[in-house]
Formats: sequence, C-alpha cells, structure tokens
Amino acid sequence: MVISNDMASLVAGSSVIRKLFEEGLKMAEAVGKENVYDFSLGNPASPVPKKVKEAINEILAENTDSYVHGYMKNAGFDETRSAIAKYLNTSFDMNYDANDIVMTVGAAGAMNCIFRAILNPGDEVVVFAPYFGEYKNYAANYGGKLVVVPPNIPEFDLNLDELEDKINVNTKCIIINNPNNPSGRIYPKETIEKLNEIVLRAEKNIGHPLYILCDEPYRELAYDGGVVPYIPAIIKNSIYIYSYSKTLSLPGERIGYLALSKEADGYEELIGAIVVANRILGYVNAPSLFQLVIGRCQGVGVDLDFYDRNRKLLYEKLTELGFEVVKPEGAFYLLVKSPFEDEEEFVELGKKQHIIMVSTKTFGCPGYVRIAYCVDYDMIKRSLAAFERLAEECGK
Amino acid sequence: MVISNDMASLVAGSSVIRKLFEEGLKMAEAVGKENVYDFSLGNPASPVPKKVKEAINEILAENTDSYVHGYMKNAGFDETRSAIAKYLNTSFDMNYDANDIVMTVGAAGAMNCIFRAILNPGDEVVVFAPYFGEYKNYAANYGGKLVVVPPNIPEFDLNLDELEDKINVNTKCIIINNPNNPSGRIYPKETIEKLNEIVLRAEKNIGHPLYILCDEPYRELAYDGGVVPYIPAIIKNSIYIYSYSKTLSLPGERIGYLALSKEADGYEELIGAIVVANRILGYVNAPSLFQLVIGRCQGVGVDLDFYDRNRKLLYEKLTELGFEVVKPEGAFYLLVKSPFEDEEEFVELGKKQHIIMVSTKTFGCPGYVRIAYCVDYDMIKRSLAAFERLAEECGK
Repeated sequence: MVISNDMASLVAGSSVIRKLFEEGLKMAEAVGKENVYDFSLGNPASPVPKKVKEAINEILAENTDSYVHGYMKNAGFDETRSAIAKYLNTSFDMNYDANDIVMTVGAAGAMNCIFRAILNPGDEVVVFAPYFGEYKNYAANYGGKLVVVPPNIPEFDLNLDELEDKINVNTKCIIINNPNNPSGRIYPKETIEKLNEIVLRAEKNIGHPLYILCDEPYRELAYDGGVVPYIPAIIKNSIYIYSYSKTLSLPGERIGYLALSKEADGYEELIGAIVVANRILGYVNAPSLFQLVIGRCQGVGVDLDFYDRNRKLLYEKLTELGFEVVKPEGAFYLLVKSPFEDEEEFVELGKKQHIIMVSTKTFGCPGYVRIAYCVDYDMIKRSLAAFERLAEECGK
Repeated sequence: MVISNDMASLVAGSSVIRKLFEEGLKMAEAVGKENVYDFSLGNPASPVPKKVKEAINEILAENTDSYVHGYMKNAGFDETRSAIAKYLNTSFDMNYDANDIVMTVGAAGAMNCIFRAILNPGDEVVVFAPYFGEYKNYAANYGGKLVVVPPNIPEFDLNLDELEDKINVNTKCIIINNPNNPSGRIYPKETIEKLNEIVLRAEKNIGHPLYILCDEPYRELAYDGGVVPYIPAIIKNSIYIYSYSKTLSLPGERIGYLALSKEADGYEELIGAIVVANRILGYVNAPSLFQLVIGRCQGVGVDLDFYDRNRKLLYEKLTELGFEVVKPEGAFYLLVKSPFEDEEEFVELGKKQHIIMVSTKTFGCPGYVRIAYCVDYDMIKRSLAAFERLAEECGK
C-alpha cells in the first residue's frame, strides 16, 4: 500500500454525500438533467447577491493587481477583518477587533486550523448527533477522536443530559452546529445557557478550557422569524466559525473566517497557533479577491424566501403524502423518517425515481434521510410526481 | 498550555520570512514605503497578465453563478483539468488526462494533500538544501520527518553523492524544487537522469516506491534561455506540483494543481487518497472562479523581462560592490554570501539601511542571505545607494 494507514478506509468509506452527488451527475447524463431530482448536496442554488457582483467589479477596478491578488498577512486583509469585527460587534454586542478575526478557506478550513492548533493525538472532540460527518475526518487529520452524544429524537435539540458523561480530561472541544445540518433545528438560547452551565462545571473538573466551536454557516437561514443565539456572547470559551458558502452562495470560493474573543482562556496562545496553522496547513491565506469582496458585503445575504418556499412546499407535500417529516427551522435541509428499518432501502427506492436523498447514518443518526432543498423551486415542483410514486412504493 | 504540544515551538519559531515581511510593513509606516527596500517575500510585483483579467470578466459574464462559484468535484472542474492535461501533454510529450490532475489550493495545498495521503507518523521526506523551510512543517503536520541532504556549495546543484545514504525503508518521497528557491539554480537534465538511477536502485532496496515531488512554481522563470527538465518525463514515480502564484502573479488566490501519471506505481490508490485528502483537510476544492480562469490561461505567463532586468541589475551592482553573489538561472531569488560568519549580522546591518533580506538558515544552508527580486524595478534602483552604504559598513 503506497498510501498512509488510515487513508485506505477513508477512501473506501469516502463521503457518501459526495458519491451521491457524483452519481446524480451520471444519472443526469443518462436520463437528462431535468429528470433527476438531486437533493444530495448543500450546493446553494440561490443567485449570488447583486452587491457581491458589484463588489467584485469595483475591487478589480479600484486596486492594483498586487493588492487584490497578492499575499497579505496570513490571517487576512486588515480591511476585511476590521469590517467583520465591526459587523459582529454591532450585530451581537461583542467587542472584537481585527486581530481577533482569522480569514480561512471556508468553515472547513477554519476547523482544520483549530484542530491543528489544539489537538494532540488521542484528544477528544465532542459532537451532538446528528452531525456533519466530515467533523470526524477533520479531527482525525491530527489524531483527534470524535465522541458522539446520541440524538435527541424527535425534538432534535441538544441532548444535554448525556453530554456530561462524554467529557473527560482528554476532551478539548465541543462542536455546536446551529442551525443544524441535517435536522434544520435551531438550538434556542435556553439550551445554550444550560450548555454553558455544564461547560463551566466540566472545565473546573478537568482543569482546562473546553472550547465551543460554533459552526454557523447557516446562521442567516432562519425561518419564521427564528432567532439563532450568538454563542460567544453566552459561553466565554467559544470560537465562532463562519463561512459565506451558504448565505452568499459562494461555496466553491472557499471563503470564511473564525473569531476568537480576547476574553477566551488562552487567547494569545490560541490565536497565534491558529494563524500559524493556517499557514503551515498550506492554505497560507484565504483567497484574496473574495476576502476583499466579503469585506464589502457584511450583512448582505441571499433572499431567504428563495429557500423558504422550497421548505414549505416540500414539507407540506411530503407530510401530505404520509411521510414523517422533521419541520426545519433553519438551514436548508429537511429530515424524513425512513418508512423502512434500514434507510438505505428508502434511499435506493428514491434513486429509482431519480430522487437523490442521503441516509443520515453518516450523521450519527440512522433511520432518516436528508433532503437538501437548496435547489431550484422548479426542480422541487417537477420532483413532486416522483415523490408521489415513491410514497406509493413505500405503501403510503 | 491550551495549544497542541508541537505548536508552541512552531509559533515561537514562526516563519522568519513572514516576520521580516511584517517588520517591513512596520518600517514602511515609520519611514515611508519608498524608503524601505523589502526583499523578504516571494510576492510577485509583475502585473497580472491581461489574458487573466479578460478571462475573469468573460467567465463571470458567460456562466451561471452556481457554476462559477458553486461546488464542483473535489478534484476540480473537468474543463480546467482537461485544459491542463492537454497543455502538459503538448509541452512535455506526456499522456495525462483530466483524471490525472487534481486542482489544489496552491502548491502548498498540493503538498499537504500528498503528505496527508502518503505519510504515516515517522515516515521520512528527503529534501536537498537549500530548501523552502515550510516543507518541514508540511511534513510535520502528519508526523513526517524531514531529512536534509546538505548543500553542494558553490555549485548549488543537487548533492546526489550524499543522497543514497539518506534513504531507508521509512523514506516515502524526495522533494525537488526546480528552479530552486532560494538559490535560483536550475537543475539540468543530466542531474535528473542521475537522480533517476539512484531512485530506481533505492526503490529496489527498500521495496516500495519513492515518489519525487516536483515542486515547480518557478518553471517558466528561466533566464538566458535556460531549460527546466520535466521530471515526470524522466522519473516514473513523480508527482508534479504547480502553482500559478508566480507565473500569473496570483499568490493570494491560492490556485495550483498536481499531476500524477497513470504509469506511476500505485496510481489508483494514490490519486484516490489525494482527492480525499483535498476534501478532508478542509480545502474541499480549489477556489472555483480561479480554477476556471487558469483553465483558460494555459501557457500564459508574466513578462519574463520584468524579473530579468531586476536580476541583471542586482547581480551586476552587488558583484561590483564586492559581494559574492550566486548568479540565478531561474526563479526570482538571489543568494549573497554573508561577509560575516553569522549572516544574521549581515541581515541586521541591512535593516539599518532599510534593506530587508532573509537569512538562509531556515533553508538549511547558513552563510547566505536571500534577496527576493520579484519587486518593482524602481525599488531596486532606489535601493542601490542603500546597498552601497551596506557594502561600506561591511568593509567592502
């Protein structure tokens, strides 16, 4: 074997979601793109906001090549980091300055930097199911181990009752993904306050900080007036992680950041290590043009209604067809309970109708399928007849 | 300590080059930008080629948002990978197809993907001094250890006589950086052919492939008609690594690729693992807009003369002033032998004249300073008086 010991299994069990996405592309070649209902990937279909396009043009016109496309500090452009700090301070009554912000290659890049900065082999990272399957790989890159708190069904709130048992001296951090992928649940302020109590108690017991990694790329996708609490305002040792992939429809551009409050324990050590990690992991810096773009687009977002009408249509139709659907409050995913014990059976039946859904097994929460409704409304409308046939096949 | 065990020393000994760069920025604030002669960083000053700018505008105008800024396959856009394969095949008589190309977040990203894919803790990576100091960190991210072949002074060719002793069963790969940063040396075809003989012999002895990582971001920067041999055409188990940072002046955009020939041992395993590494290290994919841009800019390069006149002016002036200068054949760096035993003394004397040069200690080759002449010609002209004063201070 020419590859490293743990890569073989990683390749074999490679991202189920990505595989389905690529399967969908092949299916489209065979039966035509308009006849495939691909709900596999969180690849946002909402157009890029006009302000972003204007910013691209303005930045290219107003600056020298070497400024726009050249190296800057590893942590990112000062102007961008200042703009983000200001935005967070205004929005969430925080006290960040530019030095507290590190521009990253998306949220995934931020998470890798953090893990490289804090994990020793054998250290543990706690997640709440259902969780984004890649967290496990991100931690494993640096010898870290994911410890999973089982899901809280059917509420899908954080299962705090089982958290305390999962924390020990090896625990370095806890990931909170709010709104949650894949459940669409928004964890409310009360839950986060309870979490804070548990964390403060645990930190005393284990004798070191327990960082809360707030993975919030879906923050602005909150429906029906739902409010997503800003965790770093509640829990001191929080690292805020953000990406513009979803709210500006820029997933391919790999642009995001992390923010660390000066009040956090070990601030100086931690921010220094994260910036070094950003460099030595080979990112060097977040892509330069889009750093400047998002610096000018703070507070800009895609049209929420674009996803909300998808959410409503799918939720209503699938419920009407007799499926048990978890009503999403945020993000752009929807969980459907599998009518069969093994949800893979449900996934396969879906594929026969050219509906591509993802089993929630890799999210640590078997028994459901995830439907990513960040797609064109028309595709959803076209898919409804296929869902009707699927319901029939499932004996609904 | 809240950070991981090896990060403290990494932060303390953080990139000397980056520190000098940031020191230069501060110096500029104090005495004015035009009075600081910053030769620290390989941040290319040559304008971005017109063709690149046109490509940006065309791509934004001709495609949907979700194509330009959305997710694609983790390995990159098919159109870009095809264009690169075609270009390499035409230029170097190779036989690549799109599947052999993986788009990466620069060459640094490519190298991290490769190391993640092949290194087990304790594995060894051989480099020839002088070498880019970050290689050590890239390998260390995955528990790899850098083994250094000492420099061959004053020729600065690959020191092949000492290579064989450095190879053992733990050796996984050898990095060749051609043209070399910092020496500016182009390793000729004859050297690479000799390297091939040693590698073939060594592979028999150790019983597994020895991959040659061809780190070639400076390939097109070859002066006086110099030819940079294409190593994968000579050595079977080569992984070609390229970045558009230097030849298209896009370092901040983080765009590059790697190419693996199907003839390489373990091709399938390796390419699969590298694509997974690209995903799980959090890159996910190389930045999408610039993937499309470089797909349309194969064979485009910056004006070689932009750097060549810098090279000539500095080489001639510094030689005239009595310094011992290694004449660069490629890249945009120039080595000057320190007039003092400890070259840090020379670096400090330079700073007094607001000349920022980098000690070659971190390149595994003490006794020299590196001057990055990828700067404006006018800055070099302005710096000459400062170099005169420096020469005087050095007793020249």
